[in-house]
Amino acid sequence: MIDLDFDKDPAGLLPAIVQDHGTGAVLMLAYINRESWQKTLETGKAHYWSRSRQQLWLKGESSGNVQLVKDILVDCDQDTVVFQVEQIGGAACHKGYASCFFRRVDGDDLVTLGKPVFDPDKVYGKK
Amino acid sequence: MIDLDFDKDPAGLLPAIVQDHGTGAVLMLAYINRESWQKTLETGKAHYWSRSRQQLWLKGESSGNVQLVKDILVDCDQDTVVFQVEQIGGAACHKGYASCFFRRVDGDDLVTLGKPVFDPDKVYGKK
Repeated sequence: MIDLDFDKDPAGLLPAIVQDHGTGAVLMLAYINRESWQKTLETGKAHYWSRSRQQLWLKGESSGNVQLVKDILVDCDQDTVVFQVEQIGGAACHKGYASCFFRRVDGDDLVTLGKPVFDPDKVYGKK
Repeated sequence: MIDLDFDKDPAGLLPAIVQDHGTGAVLMLAYINRESWQKTLETGKAHYWSRSRQQLWLKGESSGNVQLVKDILVDCDQDTVVFQVEQIGGAACHKGYASCFFRRVDGDDLVTLGKPVFDPDKVYGKK
């Protein structure tokens, strides 16, 4: 199995950039530890480390919208990866947008691009 | 000026994903602090925080191959950005490749994609 430089970070976490394997759009960024890296390689489904919940996180475990990993790129320092994925359900963002990067900087404003694919209240339940 | 959630990280650093504004290829990932974010917005040239040198880093300051920032995307949590850039010189990676992500996982191997754009020894001097 390909190893990454997890020891570089005190918490053993490395960033994983998630890109749509078809369009090249950047969908999200999440963090992986050695366990989530192994799980991703073994299952072909993107696994991360949830920093807020401090636990292994199969993306889509609550919504069903998993990420099927089609290709993985590794950077020159072996401390960052790109997961090129098929996003089931069409939206990677918990706010319902295809990409977490649904806003662009326009001077002093953030302009929203596009519309949500789903209603977060319906998928995750109202909070 | 748009502010980001720099306080989320103990060191005040957030990841910046760098993407070719034409092709959508992910070129590199680097870290920004508030100062480098401000400098990037003010100058239109990508500035980062060098974790190894612990100083503000204008990408291309030694090679001349700066990154002209065409668009900036901000994520849902305001703790990650995408810089969509024109990479002067055609290569973002210090190893001479267009992208730092010049290898893909193929089973237990890393397969190199493409060829270097420049010879690092000629640009940075032999080490």
